[in-house]
Amino acid sequence: MLILTREDIKKVFSMKDAIEADKEALRIYSEGKSVVPLRVNIDIPKEQGQSLFMPAYVEGLDATGIKIVSVFPKNIEIGKPSVPAKMILLDGKTGEVSAIMDGTYLTQLRTGAVQGAATDILARKDAKIGVLFGTGGQAATQLEAMLCVRELEEVRVFDINIKRAKEFVEEMKINLAQYSTKIIAVENGNEAIKDADIITTVTTSRRPVFDGSLVKKGAHVNGVGAYTPEMQELDELIIKNSDKIYFDTMEGVLAEAGDFIIPMKKGIVSKDDFQGELGRVILEEIPGRENDQEITLFKTVGVAVLDVVTAYRIYKKAVENNIGSNIEI
Amino acid sequence: MLILTREDIKKVFSMKDAIEADKEALRIYSEGKSVVPLRVNIDIPKEQGQSLFMPAYVEGLDATGIKIVSVFPKNIEIGKPSVPAKMILLDGKTGEVSAIMDGTYLTQLRTGAVQGAATDILARKDAKIGVLFGTGGQAATQLEAMLCVRELEEVRVFDINIKRAKEFVEEMKINLAQYSTKIIAVENGNEAIKDADIITTVTTSRRPVFDGSLVKKGAHVNGVGAYTPEMQELDELIIKNSDKIYFDTMEGVLAEAGDFIIPMKKGIVSKDDFQGELGRVILEEIPGRENDQEITLFKTVGVAVLDVVTAYRIYKKAVENNIGSNIEI
Repeated sequence: MLILTREDIKKVFSMKDAIEADKEALRIYSEGKSVVPLRVNIDIPKEQGQSLFMPAYVEGLDATGIKIVSVFPKNIEIGKPSVPAKMILLDGKTGEVSAIMDGTYLTQLRTGAVQGAATDILARKDAKIGVLFGTGGQAATQLEAMLCVRELEEVRVFDINIKRAKEFVEEMKINLAQYSTKIIAVENGNEAIKDADIITTVTTSRRPVFDGSLVKKGAHVNGVGAYTPEMQELDELIIKNSDKIYFDTMEGVLAEAGDFIIPMKKGIVSKDDFQGELGRVILEEIPGRENDQEITLFKTVGVAVLDVVTAYRIYKKAVENNIGSNIEI
Repeated sequence: MLILTREDIKKVFSMKDAIEADKEALRIYSEGKSVVPLRVNIDIPKEQGQSLFMPAYVEGLDATGIKIVSVFPKNIEIGKPSVPAKMILLDGKTGEVSAIMDGTYLTQLRTGAVQGAATDILARKDAKIGVLFGTGGQAATQLEAMLCVRELEEVRVFDINIKRAKEFVEEMKINLAQYSTKIIAVENGNEAIKDADIITTVTTSRRPVFDGSLVKKGAHVNGVGAYTPEMQELDELIIKNSDKIYFDTMEGVLAEAGDFIIPMKKGIVSKDDFQGELGRVILEEIPGRENDQEITLFKTVGVAVLDVVTAYRIYKKAVENNIGSNIEI
């Protein structure tokens, strides 16, 4: 059994690798070549917490896995992470546990990468200006994924707390220095998006974070946060104005994302207004962007296949490179 | 995160400890003080295998856990265990993974112990003769549990393959020497049970393994195998002739155990003929054995609370005794 820490994963697996893994995962999912049982949620009312168990099986890779994610907001009070997570990978040929890895970094990586995959496939090739809304735990990999797929001149970072935005930018300037993109904190999100080519939101906001009417023709928008029916970071105008809308999974987005559930309830949009899953674009079953004027939009809420495929690819590279600690149980 | 191998568990946790843990688990389950979501089964048709995920939460102990058990019969061909298993224990206060341990030994231990708990509570105190049907992976701990709760003079071991029975007995004579009970292999199961005080079946048989009409007054019977609706190791006569019948969980036995599903379908017995859960005897809500003439019967199919409570008790003792390897992910 291979144990892989965050540092181990970083040694062998880049954002580029993760984007390739997520593309593979989306394709496999949309082909119907995976098994994704319902997530199991256990509520822990006395700690106001929840432990979530997310299993999946990918036949083509002989890989099974389960991500265990706990959401315990009170952990912060005792100096512990509020969302601890571990990924357990099983060999689909024998059913044995083959690896256990840091699930927090895996989630950050695959969540950044799924946006990177969408941006790579849907954004204009000549995109120059990016905007990122949100500077929480998932923000760093979102930013890196954008830089990884397009040669951006500038990325503007907005947070309702400008101090946090500035701190995040200072950190990113160091961590992402190799991309030579100008990263700046901005105080006005609506100003920032006016000439933006790529806009990514990764917040838990219940109110839209920018005015959708200001998004320019040809832009690409990624909605990555807002993973419950009550959250809504994208306004109804951008849902309505987008020429093409894609999801990681139809089932997941329509069941969980307030960004779509709310305007659909209001009758502003219907299922027919959505192109379908990004995996089907990868499979060339449906078209992606068809010209430089279209506004494209991608919404993700995540799916366990992203975890299993990414974890499997990480594991393979770790074994090849002799990284991680082997333990026997 | 503490890693506990089979050997580590053996160092700190005895069968007696396991029986106490299982009694605690049965009590907690019957009190309704646990959360046991539906087991998740992923079929792996191309390997004729299955990976099973069994989560549970026990509020009173602040313990959450998930046992991952894979059933891959073809593993034997490549010299690997056909039912590899791992137990993942989470701290119910923080949601963090606190331990990973050998799930195969945990299962053997808690399955032996649940029968030990039942035998301890239901068998006559003066029981002298035991019979064990089956010598598979679960048999050794079944035998030990019987020896652990009663001072038996003799245990007779039956297997449809007498050679296997003899080999098993030779091994047990060494491993269980401290109990000074005579352990013998027998060729005729029906002969063996005639004067037996305790009879335990642990097979996957689809045909009853002994004639229930031969069981003597005052005996106690444990049905531990036969965990699918098609399996039936206990015949309909013993179900009908038993004065008192107890289950580990009503829900589990009535949904999964052919021993009961088959005679119930035939109308030979009904739900009203069963006393209820052993946990309720422990809680003193219902009586157990009331005289030395009653035939008592206990049927178990297992429940994730047994795993979580036992794993938690193992973990606590391992921490106290500084056993196991600590790793950071």
